[in-house]
Amino acid sequence: MSRLSGIRSIMEDIAAAGRDTNGGEWLNLSPGNPSLIPEVVAAWHRLVQETLDDRFVESSTRYGPSRGTNALVEAVVEYFNITYGWSIGPENVVVGPGSQMLSFILTTLHTGPDADDVLRPLVLPRLPDYTGYQGLGLDAGGVAGIEPLIVDDGPHSFHYAVDTEALARQQHMGMMLLSHPANPTGSSIEAAELKALIGTAEAHDVPLVVDHAYGEPFPGVVQTRLAPVLHPHVINLFTLSKAGLPGERIAFAIGPAELIDPVVSFIANSTLHAPQLLQNVVARALSTRHIDVLTTRYIKPYYKAKRAMAEELLTEALPDSLDWRLHSSDGGMFCWLTIDHDWFDDLKLYELLRRKRMFIVPGRHFFVEPLDTPFLRTHGRRCVRLSLSPDEWVVAEGINRLGEALEELRASAGSGE
Amino acid sequence: MSRLSGIRSIMEDIAAAGRDTNGGEWLNLSPGNPSLIPEVVAAWHRLVQETLDDRFVESSTRYGPSRGTNALVEAVVEYFNITYGWSIGPENVVVGPGSQMLSFILTTLHTGPDADDVLRPLVLPRLPDYTGYQGLGLDAGGVAGIEPLIVDDGPHSFHYAVDTEALARQQHMGMMLLSHPANPTGSSIEAAELKALIGTAEAHDVPLVVDHAYGEPFPGVVQTRLAPVLHPHVINLFTLSKAGLPGERIAFAIGPAELIDPVVSFIANSTLHAPQLLQNVVARALSTRHIDVLTTRYIKPYYKAKRAMAEELLTEALPDSLDWRLHSSDGGMFCWLTIDHDWFDDLKLYELLRRKRMFIVPGRHFFVEPLDTPFLRTHGRRCVRLSLSPDEWVVAEGINRLGEALEELRASAGSGE
Repeated sequence: MSRLSGIRSIMEDIAAAGRDTNGGEWLNLSPGNPSLIPEVVAAWHRLVQETLDDRFVESSTRYGPSRGTNALVEAVVEYFNITYGWSIGPENVVVGPGSQMLSFILTTLHTGPDADDVLRPLVLPRLPDYTGYQGLGLDAGGVAGIEPLIVDDGPHSFHYAVDTEALARQQHMGMMLLSHPANPTGSSIEAAELKALIGTAEAHDVPLVVDHAYGEPFPGVVQTRLAPVLHPHVINLFTLSKAGLPGERIAFAIGPAELIDPVVSFIANSTLHAPQLLQNVVARALSTRHIDVLTTRYIKPYYKAKRAMAEELLTEALPDSLDWRLHSSDGGMFCWLTIDHDWFDDLKLYELLRRKRMFIVPGRHFFVEPLDTPFLRTHGRRCVRLSLSPDEWVVAEGINRLGEALEELRASAGSGE
Repeated sequence: MSRLSGIRSIMEDIAAAGRDTNGGEWLNLSPGNPSLIPEVVAAWHRLVQETLDDRFVESSTRYGPSRGTNALVEAVVEYFNITYGWSIGPENVVVGPGSQMLSFILTTLHTGPDADDVLRPLVLPRLPDYTGYQGLGLDAGGVAGIEPLIVDDGPHSFHYAVDTEALARQQHMGMMLLSHPANPTGSSIEAAELKALIGTAEAHDVPLVVDHAYGEPFPGVVQTRLAPVLHPHVINLFTLSKAGLPGERIAFAIGPAELIDPVVSFIANSTLHAPQLLQNVVARALSTRHIDVLTTRYIKPYYKAKRAMAEELLTEALPDSLDWRLHSSDGGMFCWLTIDHDWFDDLKLYELLRRKRMFIVPGRHFFVEPLDTPFLRTHGRRCVRLSLSPDEWVVAEGINRLGEALEELRASAGSGE
């Protein structure tokens, strides 16, 4: 926990680039920040202003409940009951300072050595997945990932599937966690896969934690409307980060009371509660359903258009003679590319692009160490993530520069493939 | 971590009382909330408004650095260098979502089983201390407390001293932690005691964490100006909670870079960063030094007057024939009373007062389990904490009711002492 994950060294490179004012503009296609969509920014600004006017004293000047402010917990209950026809109550909800913290708490509660000193790891059932999950385990070797199956979908398209047989071979686990739709690939989980994951959770009697950071119901950057599920072994995580408030760390979990209660106690002991002014801002966005306007009118169409643009530009900019494939996407804010050649290496591409004043994220960071399995020595080093959140011209120019860099890499490898 | 500490059952009683609208008004002398001082509330409201106007986009709509926003880290560096003549830099500072979270992180990093499987506990070197410290340990038996020496200061006055010999007998430790001035007693640490604690930290090569929640430089509810110290083994915690923003969970630590760096990484892995709008509000309060106006003009005089009032009322309301003693106070927001009679029991008093529609906090919660040592079977059950933050009439009426309750307890014990 006291060391930084690999992806953070990229953040240091980017910070250094920001201080380098010689030469042309940098193209940063690495960010996990959501786009600044003007209408969305203005709406949140207004919601914060209204909450500051109405509820400053009750929010900021008093300690509050560890489960979350009454306003937000009630708003969450009502919003989800109306949206999905559920009948959850406050006992099924806990608000935390960001979904990273909720994931950390759940991992700390459910994984690690058990009473017989057997290590029950956090299992990521479908690699690649969000790099932040790798930093969650307090125990060495506490995070295990299941390598996916690769399914070809055409000349320049593919997708991953959960390798349920490999998952079945995972002997010990304390909890499963996955992003849905996934960062970095954008793939949703299919109904059959979800069923298999729930079956595995039941067999091991562990929670399956589904992180809806990019999905339903907000920011709603997902094309297949697969509602979150209620199940005795499932905990759903929702965050306001990708809907426009990443700087304020407001998230919440919904699940069975027996799994939610210990999280409330952990929050009480470790951080008391999430910050309250912004909790009440979110309560206002939910209870007025203004969040739905932001999602359906602005955020979802924005990323859909951006994705279509990126797909078109990639087809134009990347040599057809190259075996590149784009992961088919159900949503999310990224493009996940694989370049399936022996001469390709994600870190080499990263360094080459950095010399060309551009940032992408090397794919290997989304897999779990140790990275020396046959799958990860090949495919695991042949992927990159491009973000859709930078300005259009950055994405367009970046994809061009990527095409040039790939040509250079191929040429310098002396390969005539 | 998944269970609640004893004091939280009191919070449930208080919540239940809030729903009980029959009968007279409840007197709540238990709260840890700071008082709502109108000028202080108005000033924070204005600072939040100014920050929302100027810095909303950069604060709320983007992820930020795990060490803290540049604005706040720079403001902290400048404020402390000017105030104390230090020459710290950003590498000595980390901002976190509340000092409870910083304490939790430090405890997790420094305590627990070591490489030889010896448990290195969190040591509270001077009991009684803040109940929230008891929930910090992830390991069973991970928190150890050193019983204090009792020093009589006159007929109705006493104070605790660090039992340095008992501390020397503590074989293993991973970290020491104390509040200063202390919650619940209000006692500062004396220069000689601090020297002894630092010596112990050096001998064990562990950090000494000093939590200035009530002290210097803000909220400044402390009479002895003992500046925080810089030392290779000392980490200082500062929070904005008692200066008026308890609901927003903004705190920071200052210490040697080698001890601060792992905290930054832990925050990156567990919660990314503290919420940013409020970080930038605090930056504004520090860089304008408006915080000093709040502290010296309003907060410090307010609690000084409240304490003087409480001392006077206690002398009037508690029978002189009773062996009651008030812990002499250097600051903080509480009165700590001991009633040294065999018939007295803090939980009995709590229950009796609850029937009289009043809340106090039983003293035993500020000691560390197991509570069956000779010291804790006697003195540990003969203390109560009264808060100075409720309205004046609540404190006054509460002290009267306490006097009546003590008479009743003595009478029902059939004791003619």
